[in-house]
Amino acid sequence: MDKKIRVTVWNEFRHEIRHENVKAVYPNGLHTVIGEGLLAAGDFEVQYAWLDKDAEHGLSEEVLQNTDVLIWWGHCAHHEVKDEIVDRVQKHIQQGMGLIVLHSGHFSKIFKRMMGTTCSLKWREVGEKERIWTVESAHPIAQGLPEHFELPHTEMYGERFDIPTPKDVVFITWYEGGEVFRSGVTFERGYGRIFYFAPGHETFPIYYDENIRKVIANAARWAAPRIRKEITCPSVKALEEIKSK
Amino acid sequence: MDKKIRVTVWNEFRHEIRHENVKAVYPNGLHTVIGEGLLAAGDFEVQYAWLDKDAEHGLSEEVLQNTDVLIWWGHCAHHEVKDEIVDRVQKHIQQGMGLIVLHSGHFSKIFKRMMGTTCSLKWREVGEKERIWTVESAHPIAQGLPEHFELPHTEMYGERFDIPTPKDVVFITWYEGGEVFRSGVTFERGYGRIFYFAPGHETFPIYYDENIRKVIANAARWAAPRIRKEITCPSVKALEEIKSK
Amino acid sequence: MDKKIRVTVWNEFRHEIRHENVKAVYPNGLHTVIGEGLLAAGDFEVQYAWLDKDAEHGLSEEVLQNTDVLIWWGHCAHHEVKDEIVDRVQKHIQQGMGLIVLHSGHFSKIFKRMMGTTCSLKWREVGEKERIWTVESAHPIAQGLPEHFELPHTEMYGERFDIPTPKDVVFITWYEGGEVFRSGVTFERGYGRIFYFAPGHETFPIYYDENIRKVIANAARWAAPRIRKEITCPSVKALEEIKSK
Amino acid sequence: MDKKIRVTVWNEFRHEIRHENVKAVYPNGLHTVIGEGLLAAGDFEVQYAWLDKDAEHGLSEEVLQNTDVLIWWGHCAHHEVKDEIVDRVQKHIQQGMGLIVLHSGHFSKIFKRMMGTTCSLKWREVGEKERIWTVESAHPIAQGLPEHFELPHTEMYGERFDIPTPKDVVFITWYEGGEVFRSGVTFERGYGRIFYFAPGHETFPIYYDENIRKVIANAARWAAPRIRKEITCPSVKALEEIKSK
Repeated sequence: MDKKIRVTVWNEFRHEIRHENVKAVYPNGLHTVIGEGLLAAGDFEVQYAWLDKDAEHGLSEEVLQNTDVLIWWGHCAHHEVKDEIVDRVQKHIQQGMGLIVLHSGHFSKIFKRMMGTTCSLKWREVGEKERIWTVESAHPIAQGLPEHFELPHTEMYGERFDIPTPKDVVFITWYEGGEVFRSGVTFERGYGRIFYFAPGHETFPIYYDENIRKVIANAARWAAPRIRKEITCPSVKALEEIKSK
Repeated sequence: MDKKIRVTVWNEFRHEIRHENVKAVYPNGLHTVIGEGLLAAGDFEVQYAWLDKDAEHGLSEEVLQNTDVLIWWGHCAHHEVKDEIVDRVQKHIQQGMGLIVLHSGHFSKIFKRMMGTTCSLKWREVGEKERIWTVESAHPIAQGLPEHFELPHTEMYGERFDIPTPKDVVFITWYEGGEVFRSGVTFERGYGRIFYFAPGHETFPIYYDENIRKVIANAARWAAPRIRKEITCPSVKALEEIKSK
Repeated sequence: MDKKIRVTVWNEFRHEIRHENVKAVYPNGLHTVIGEGLLAAGDFEVQYAWLDKDAEHGLSEEVLQNTDVLIWWGHCAHHEVKDEIVDRVQKHIQQGMGLIVLHSGHFSKIFKRMMGTTCSLKWREVGEKERIWTVESAHPIAQGLPEHFELPHTEMYGERFDIPTPKDVVFITWYEGGEVFRSGVTFERGYGRIFYFAPGHETFPIYYDENIRKVIANAARWAAPRIRKEITCPSVKALEEIKSK
Repeated sequence: MDKKIRVTVWNEFRHEIRHENVKAVYPNGLHTVIGEGLLAAGDFEVQYAWLDKDAEHGLSEEVLQNTDVLIWWGHCAHHEVKDEIVDRVQKHIQQGMGLIVLHSGHFSKIFKRMMGTTCSLKWREVGEKERIWTVESAHPIAQGLPEHFELPHTEMYGERFDIPTPKDVVFITWYEGGEVFRSGVTFERGYGRIFYFAPGHETFPIYYDENIRKVIANAARWAAPRIRKEITCPSVKALEEIKSK
């Protein structure tokens, strides 16, 4: 039997506690709903972590060593994530761990750290319709997805999205209000793979949607480590005779 | 008359003070030799900055606002560069300022900040020969350069170089000792352009070399700002009528 | 005084002759309207060529040798373009000539030849609104363009657009009918640069639009040859002593 | 049990018949040695095709429909491959079939067709040493390969290699005679994946080498179809109400 992919779903987990309208949609936190989607797929082990879980935001060295893919959702408390934990997460990504950043995680410390850019965008929260177009149908993250699928109510994230040129633009979104967005984009940094996926506002039941769940499961399979090892900067001996001294 | 491109050459400027063998090659600091090469080209204004110039390493907000392209050379004191200055430089690159990182600057805070990777590599310092191959002859940075050119004595920087996939691999180096290296690579981050160029060890007179000077001048022209403005994350009004509420 | 960029605008020039509704919009052929836009910019020399101009479709070896950038518009007669002329155009692009392919030119022999893909897409002709979003604001082709601009009536070209991953996605279009499209994309092949730009249906006055004209002029400047020379496949002598024989 | 990947190894198969020194190394054609390497890996089904096998070079519509990955070796008779067969192979690649092009296949009609460039390079045949550096250690094609490996005698293929910017540069070669080469590069065209791998001159026993065999097997796994379907250019109905008519 194949080994299961070990996913850690990290959630800021503040909105669901403080705001009734969010709690109504995600009573146990949106991380648990994302996790349920993965568990239903059958090939994942899931654990959860959140900002206030412990002094390390639930992301100890041991947790990360046993994480194949880290999913990140954060919004109003990005600045409360400790820099030393961001350093640690970055190190594990560079050494092969996968990272999936969702929605408002575009402004998380870890995503900005991996991109080098501001990760800014345009936004609007009026519950408009979103249509997601599959641009790279052959990409593993698009496996089994239709040519397009809709979310009836969503927060708008519009271009220009300030990111480096992605490895692949898998999805582009059309918004009812007139904008477009590169809503599913991939990156590689060190040995690690990164996928950013835009849908997922906390007041809409987006993580219950079957297409969204399929994208996240596909992305977790795609981002699972291909190799995992330390990256060093060694002094090495010459392989050929040096005559130029 | 066209406006000159304003280059600030930043040098750590420690080796040249402390080590006689470096001072012998670069008596006034290698920044001045890089600057002379640019001034000889005729279309640049050059100013200098260094780690101990002042409390801001010579990189005040005003200096950066008046810099089109920042050239960076550092080696043994990367950790002494203050994080707030790195933040400031990063902001200016994102807003359009060009960055050229030379040689051991691969491990500078600002380069690692822009890349998101470790920027590690293999190295060896035995003074071997290096042959630089022009891979993208049509790239502006390769303008006027031959198909290949040699440096008689160099420090070896070998693959795997831990960087994101570059926008362009302009140069690849062959080393006498048996290694290869993507020695001239470009990136874009925000509105800014970045060029990393490997040659330039402090004990060899590499920045006096005419081909090397041509590469640096070409790169400074290429990296000069195309636009320069703040990147914001605005809430915007819908451009079309929203019916999905 | 700087030398002007020499643009040859190539048009199939069949619709304008055969269909009254097209002739009404482009009485002298849409190539002349594209050319007028370039001439108004001031830094271009423009000549015209079309399918039935002569036995070589107006694209003799001499014409191409004196063309910096070739603009291509075709639709219903792609198959009438002779393969030997396509070979010739391809050779000049590989050697440094720029190519701008407009609208229905996505299915031209020359564009498919340069891409290696089918260049297929979805389409609909109901005169809907199109909004073009500038995704890479710092790209030379986007210079002076607003964050978004509209065309009141357009033919829809929708994803998936079967092209290789572009060098840059400069523009993405939002359509009233619900689709998106990577409407302005760049490629490099050999020493030549290629820009595909989607807007431009023959029944709408799109090539009179100031923003569209700005894009085409910017693209022609960007695609002008950086170098221009033959690409050979030479046998070369060793640069270092071979001891492995 | 997983289904095996169906590889068709296509060989020009002229040198081995006409030249004693080639026959001495590859008595039954180099395609059979490549095939033996794949069969030893255990997860492949292999069939062979060659230029003179039948009127379709062994590449009938039925053969290609039952081929997951096509491996291509050709050299002196590229021009004898019929254009209609090249059209057919291109169509299958666009629809998802993988293609691995080896060594002198850089000048094959099918590779030039997929690239759009001349695919030229520098070359020298003196039997020098080649050292292949793994640049993207995490890429599936590099799985299990060391940081570098050597071929004692090889034909030199040197830069500039006239190809579009690859998706990934997996390997870069160092040559004893002083050149470098992007010797293992990937591309995606349509739904299909393409890998070019430089080693493999017909007078050297390179396809018996264990590292070379590992690269080819890895590449065949990587290039196996992710989806396989026709690419169409449909007229589609609007998904939203059009008010702009």
